[in-house]
Amino acid sequence: MKLKNNDLVLLFDFFSELLTEKQREYFHFYYNEDLSLAEIAENEGITRQGVRDIIARAGKMLLNFEAKTGVVERFLALRGDAERLEALSKELLGIKQAERLSEDVAEIAARLREW
Amino acid sequence: MKLKNNDLVLLFDFFSELLTEKQREYFHFYYNEDLSLAEIAENEGITRQGVRDIIARAGKMLLNFEAKTGVVERFLALRGDAERLEALSKELLGIKQAERLSEDVAEIAARLREW
Repeated sequence: MKLKNNDLVLLFDFFSELLTEKQREYFHFYYNEDLSLAEIAENEGITRQGVRDIIARAGKMLLNFEAKTGVVERFLALRGDAERLEALSKELLGIKQAERLSEDVAEIAARLREW
Repeated sequence: MKLKNNDLVLLFDFFSELLTEKQREYFHFYYNEDLSLAEIAENEGITRQGVRDIIARAGKMLLNFEAKTGVVERFLALRGDAERLEALSKELLGIKQAERLSEDVAEIAARLREW
């Protein structure tokens, strides 16, 4: 069974353009398109081990980018804040004078979610 | 007069660890510590042109990281949202029933600011 690594896929969303084209393509085939190493190898005309090495190297680079920048960790904290703001927005909706402000809070929450 | 590039310094805050040690050091000396190229060259025992090349290369790499990830652009949008949340928090303070919620909004705004 292929191990799906959600963390790596999240890192890929942020840092994929910092990989080489080949690393980006093979990583995408394997993790996002769910192709097997053997399938990618056949399509690309290289060995299965070659594909494995390139994907492993891509994964290491993604982990390194995160270790060096902490961007994805901060993104996850942001997602938590977006959820809290959504909840606050709903509470405000129950307060007559704050209805309009509730909309503003909801709008910001929605934008933070899209990060 | 030395040109101070605020954008580059902001990029440096995010991506400095992706530079080589030398690039990071010289960039820091020049932009954050305000040393001249000649001063850095003398301290490090290399030519002024050598220092200039390393700093220029560091700047290009920082711009490239941003072009590839868009992280700093998103960070700046976040700063705008943080300011709007602060303003909303103050408005909520004027609404008796929303006082407690105002604190929550202010807390999130403060955290977004620290990004």
